[in-house]
Amino acid sequence: LVSKLPNVGTTIFTVMSKLAADTGAINLSQGFPGFDCSPELVSLVDRYMRKGANQYAPMAGVPALREALAQKTLAHYNVGYDSETEITITSGATEAIFAAVTAVVRPGDEVLVFEPAYDSYVPAIELNGGIPVYVTLTPPDYSVDWQAVSEKITDKTRLILVNTPHNPTGRVWTTDDLSQLAGLVRDKDIWIVSDEVYEYILFDGRTHHSLMTHPELRERTFVVGSFGKTYHITGWKVGYCLAPADLTVEFRKIHQYLTFSTVTPIQYALADYLQQPDHYTQLPDFYQRKRDLFLAGLAQSRFQFKPAEGSFFQTVSYATITDEPDYDLAVRLTREIGVASIPVSVFYNQKNDYKILRFCFAKEDAVLEEAAERLSQL
Amino acid sequence: LVSKLPNVGTTIFTVMSKLAADTGAINLSQGFPGFDCSPELVSLVDRYMRKGANQYAPMAGVPALREALAQKTLAHYNVGYDSETEITITSGATEAIFAAVTAVVRPGDEVLVFEPAYDSYVPAIELNGGIPVYVTLTPPDYSVDWQAVSEKITDKTRLILVNTPHNPTGRVWTTDDLSQLAGLVRDKDIWIVSDEVYEYILFDGRTHHSLMTHPELRERTFVVGSFGKTYHITGWKVGYCLAPADLTVEFRKIHQYLTFSTVTPIQYALADYLQQPDHYTQLPDFYQRKRDLFLAGLAQSRFQFKPAEGSFFQTVSYATITDEPDYDLAVRLTREIGVASIPVSVFYNQKNDYKILRFCFAKEDAVLEEAAERLSQL
Ligand SMILES: CSCCC(=O)C(=O)O
Ligand SMILES: CSCCC(=O)C(=O)O
Repeated sequence: LVSKLPNVGTTIFTVMSKLAADTGAINLSQGFPGFDCSPELVSLVDRYMRKGANQYAPMAGVPALREALAQKTLAHYNVGYDSETEITITSGATEAIFAAVTAVVRPGDEVLVFEPAYDSYVPAIELNGGIPVYVTLTPPDYSVDWQAVSEKITDKTRLILVNTPHNPTGRVWTTDDLSQLAGLVRDKDIWIVSDEVYEYILFDGRTHHSLMTHPELRERTFVVGSFGKTYHITGWKVGYCLAPADLTVEFRKIHQYLTFSTVTPIQYALADYLQQPDHYTQLPDFYQRKRDLFLAGLAQSRFQFKPAEGSFFQTVSYATITDEPDYDLAVRLTREIGVASIPVSVFYNQKNDYKILRFCFAKEDAVLEEAAERLSQL
Repeated sequence: LVSKLPNVGTTIFTVMSKLAADTGAINLSQGFPGFDCSPELVSLVDRYMRKGANQYAPMAGVPALREALAQKTLAHYNVGYDSETEITITSGATEAIFAAVTAVVRPGDEVLVFEPAYDSYVPAIELNGGIPVYVTLTPPDYSVDWQAVSEKITDKTRLILVNTPHNPTGRVWTTDDLSQLAGLVRDKDIWIVSDEVYEYILFDGRTHHSLMTHPELRERTFVVGSFGKTYHITGWKVGYCLAPADLTVEFRKIHQYLTFSTVTPIQYALADYLQQPDHYTQLPDFYQRKRDLFLAGLAQSRFQFKPAEGSFFQTVSYATITDEPDYDLAVRLTREIGVASIPVSVFYNQKNDYKILRFCFAKEDAVLEEAAERLSQL
């Protein structure tokens, strides 16, 4: 069998998490909470299982959850989505991204990708015969060069993949970024997939500018979200896609053949849980404390960094310490110092090595303190 | 946005289930149990959620579940699969089918499909640029014409989609079918996806001849299974793919970007639950009783039928009663008589109307009796 993805190996998340497990290192590589979800949420799932909500959910998602999400979106962003025709529940944000890309991209279509890019974007594009066109973001601030973007847009550009707050850099788009993007796609047959799974995790008083908040962008964007990131349930694999009705029709045609539907009792539980907004409004404070704790520890180290603007990732530069390749250093730190991270070069098409590592700070305080102390040995 | 699946509407399952709900009809259309799963299984999920198994599972699945599945497969079929390299847990059998098709099919490849075919096969092929080539099975016995199959195999044939026990017809492949298939693909670059989600539901003493039991077929087959069908948890969306290591490598490259992983606490619960074989060895008796109960009721009716060999579906012919199109009759029976079914023409590419309806008998006894009584009014 000739591989359709010859360049793809095991994801870096699996590689580093396994190395961390094998060596007993603190795992700040793969992005998942090192603490548990709310027991209340568990009880809700249990209750719905016992009520017998164990057969197929509707293909688009349980109506109560879609309705709760519509209300939350309206309350939080002041943007309306119709729960019947514009909201679809998916088996994680990963499925939503794959479905949205598949709905749009045909062989030969060009797709703009800002790199460093989350690792599932490019395979999704390539499996659909699309051609990724890269716009490179560089440290220390990873801001978008809109002139460069405009030069990469051609007649063949059919899709742009956006991610804010950004993984791995933590960068957050501004309203100016939104206007620039809107100006470039105006009157063109270009759609947008906006991965906003860290939408509730922003720091230092920042606001998340969802693409849905810009009316011109809303009309052409698949906004992808994740209950996993927001409620500390990455292993439950529930995400969603908000998109105008005409896009949602095409999105659902794909979703119904990718997975058809998503775990029923979990959907009912989330529908109830979403009624209580403080479960997500407290997230910025919760994670900012963790970021600051980790960075206070790293202040003793020789790493250089700018505090992440959002997400639960912090990138740090080791350029002044060693010129080892970032992958080698990530492996060495795991083995020798006992802290696993992600080398950011893996998120660049050409594996650009800017001597940057990414650490996930969604961990218990004591773990973050211990990790920072170990990292200060370098 | 120009549709990539212009001919696809809402699936027939959604359409008929919604019509049944709107009209208050008995729903024998979409295939899902009308009774609950074991409370023990629910308690296991609850226990693992409370133990904190709420973050990402490994991409290939929880090792304990893969190991339990390897043991069950060895015990039941006397065929070994390596849990590390040959077994992958997926978000339902639908995801497994999509991933396997995507791993193999490239633009221009021909894929043999036996029709009537489950509705997700052809979109999966077409989204990958493949060309479905149909081998038509016809009532009353829906047996495979192997001469016809051999004539449809060309240099471009890259994949064959098999489904036994077969949905919608309930037909079960024989060892002769396996030998015929093996003979036709020998020495060719042709792979097989075998949808065996009803593997434990066979009647009248029949044996399921999984493609894995034929050594030559095992080497080129992705065997797809479903915990949903076996344990009455269709809404939990957990399936799997068994395939030789070289095929599994490619399968996982796709799976990791489609959904990445599958609900963690459910995987742990199933790993424990699989240790108790009577939960699936009792299935043939359990469903045969239901089939026979339904058919005893239908004996009063004017429908004609041959008892299903496997699956939880029964097809019936109404050719001697009326010549209405099957879709129209299915809608009319739902509205007027209060029993929803699936018109089998929807599973044929050319919508061949052999005047056949499919009924799901995975329902409570009283429901089946009432449905049969209503149907006898026609
Ligand atoms: C699906 S595993 C990767 C989790 C994650 O989002 C990350 O570490 O970037
Ligand atoms: C995924 S909904 C369809 C369920 C089913 O397998 C059927 O009714 O054939």
